Amino acid sequence: MTNIAILGFGVVGSGVAKLITDNKNEVAKLGGDEINIKYILDLRDFPDSPFADKVIHNYDKIVNDPEISVVVEVMGGSHPAYEYTVAALKAGKSVITSNKEVVANFGDEFLALAKECGVCYRFEASVGGGIPVISPIISCIKHNKVSEVRGILNGTTNYILTQMFTYGQSFESALKDAQKKGYAESNPDADILGTDACRKIAILTALVSEKLAPVSDIHTEGITKIRDNDVSAANKIGATIKLVGRGIIKNGKPMAMVAPFIVPTDMPLSQVSGVYNAVEVVAEPLGNVMFYGQGAGAGATASAVVSDLMQIMTTGTAYPAPVFEKCGDFASFDNFSCKRYLALSKSDVEAVLKTLIENSDVIYDGEDEVQLITSEMTEAELTKMLGDTKPLSHIRML
Amino acid sequence: MTNIAILGFGVVGSGVAKLITDNKNEVAKLGGDEINIKYILDLRDFPDSPFADKVIHNYDKIVNDPEISVVVEVMGGSHPAYEYTVAALKAGKSVITSNKEVVANFGDEFLALAKECGVCYRFEASVGGGIPVISPIISCIKHNKVSEVRGILNGTTNYILTQMFTYGQSFESALKDAQKKGYAESNPDADILGTDACRKIAILTALVSEKLAPVSDIHTEGITKIRDNDVSAANKIGATIKLVGRGIIKNGKPMAMVAPFIVPTDMPLSQVSGVYNAVEVVAEPLGNVMFYGQGAGAGATASAVVSDLMQIMTTGTAYPAPVFEKCGDFASFDNFSCKRYLALSKSDVEAVLKTLIENSDVIYDGEDEVQLITSEMTEAELTKMLGDTKPLSHIRML
Repeated sequence: MTNIAILGFGVVGSGVAKLITDNKNEVAKLGGDEINIKYILDLRDFPDSPFADKVIHNYDKIVNDPEISVVVEVMGGSHPAYEYTVAALKAGKSVITSNKEVVANFGDEFLALAKECGVCYRFEASVGGGIPVISPIISCIKHNKVSEVRGILNGTTNYILTQMFTYGQSFESALKDAQKKGYAESNPDADILGTDACRKIAILTALVSEKLAPVSDIHTEGITKIRDNDVSAANKIGATIKLVGRGIIKNGKPMAMVAPFIVPTDMPLSQVSGVYNAVEVVAEPLGNVMFYGQGAGAGATASAVVSDLMQIMTTGTAYPAPVFEKCGDFASFDNFSCKRYLALSKSDVEAVLKTLIENSDVIYDGEDEVQLITSEMTEAELTKMLGDTKPLSHIRML
Repeated sequence: MTNIAILGFGVVGSGVAKLITDNKNEVAKLGGDEINIKYILDLRDFPDSPFADKVIHNYDKIVNDPEISVVVEVMGGSHPAYEYTVAALKAGKSVITSNKEVVANFGDEFLALAKECGVCYRFEASVGGGIPVISPIISCIKHNKVSEVRGILNGTTNYILTQMFTYGQSFESALKDAQKKGYAESNPDADILGTDACRKIAILTALVSEKLAPVSDIHTEGITKIRDNDVSAANKIGATIKLVGRGIIKNGKPMAMVAPFIVPTDMPLSQVSGVYNAVEVVAEPLGNVMFYGQGAGAGATASAVVSDLMQIMTTGTAYPAPVFEKCGDFASFDNFSCKRYLALSKSDVEAVLKTLIENSDVIYDGEDEVQLITSEMTEAELTKMLGDTKPLSHIRML
């Protein structure tokens, strides 16, 4: 009998309890042992839940119980998740989390502490919801030379962009629609400003480069500035716009970013619609592989949490653990080079940006604005070329 | 130092040797030990290869060498791969293979023998080339209730179908094109008749149902009967045609098949183009996840072989091994129920098939033929309804 404790009885916590109960046989067979949910920690009581009698309010009871071998932290937020995780690891308990914020901020520390204490720290559910991503990267891809990991990491923004492209909705109207359907929070900032995707790309980049960037160092743009005109322009060139997190490793140095990218429709990421997520890895000699599925939701996320539990129960610390080192040694975003879509006001173009125009493909030249695709250039080169001119839109090309 | 032997120095075997050599550091770090390719068994000599001095012609040398802990069987074909695998397992050596034929025919026997001998038998590369499929299904998905595993499992046929849909090529011309590009063999039967995909769906179905069907029991259709008219019809209804392998588990009973399916363009499988492969799993509570990438090629396949090696070196027999039981207890294909696209000659329709027409959506009614989408019906019901009439085309709908 493997005794576990679940910290937080919200959407994910109750999903985990339900999966372990509903799929009791599958889980016991695969894990090689029965699982007993001994405690559920929450501030609230749940008198009507079938798990009502497991609910406690005092974390010490869990840390001090030698029968508990695995703690499932699905509370979200940095604190007290940080303190609870440290206490559990120090008490010799493995920790599983779905909490991308705490992994992106303290993953390096937890992994080192887990190693020191001879236990596991695992976080499959922190990226891509139920999609197996972290485990396959570690156990099936990392022996390749990985040059990039990238993905559509946030279902809310992908839903909004899909609505804008498929139904011609404006950003505002698509956002309202997402809120009505429960895909976006009433305060949608963490999604639409790219914060959520930023944490996830921090984790993925660390996984393949072994270097964890402070999230504040990662260039992060949301989707709030995408105009209807940009949607038309992308459509015109046979492309779509996606919020893409990218971790690029070049000459051993990683660079991470989150920004809207113009994605040609023949690239697999362009086909990821609605609330779905996908993670693509580019590696040598493997080539490109992509993992696709539901990036959120109780059942999907619970599946990822329980997969970590299965692996801890069977292979434990023998399974290669990721190694992160908190590290400022990332390549500067100024050096990021790509083709770019620019929309410029007609007067700017005529007055000052003739050279830029001459080296670009003009895809639209209208009364008010000019839209063009530049040749490949770095962020620094673009800034220099634009001078004081503010483009109406600037979207990088994948 | 982990000593291995490679059986067969063709495309995959040389890819494995190259990967282990080129990515020496990555491999040693992840596997926790350096790898030494001690022997390469082949009928031929390779005097110009950097691995020339490893090449031997006598398998006994490998089986009798106690230093060899892992045998990589990448010869293809059932014999002598079968005998070599049995001998290696009995000698206490783990075996890794990319050989779908031998896994589909004898996987149950090898897995049981490996368990008995306390070693591993692994076959990630046998399905989906380099795409991590088998490992994520076992370690990240199987604790769910899996209702279906399906996929585009053969790159050659997918290339041909993509050419037919994208460029309006005929089947014959697309096949010639594939042969010219090296995607199809000069004798393409194993691909275009569905045999290759059949072996792979046998393996995937066994993985999730634990029951391995004799491949001869699996309903297998290739793509040779797809007409230009059918391509137009699929286009007209916003769909494409893919050769899909499906393993469906209903009430604990599996059913497996390979056949062309009409796939609506909003389903992720429809977007898998060219020589790419994809495997989709439908599970509860996880939902749908899809794995996408290169289904063949030296580098991709070698990556999958080496991922098995990494896992054997780290977690060994602690990693949950698949269990297959060779089993005739599959649901009958006669009971397979779906909507169907039928093309019928005008005279047949007018003479005898009025009831069928009345219960179908007619998508084309021309001078020579009528094309329709039937309501959902089983194979048996269709056969009964058609009587002696042979349809010009019959393609099932996904």
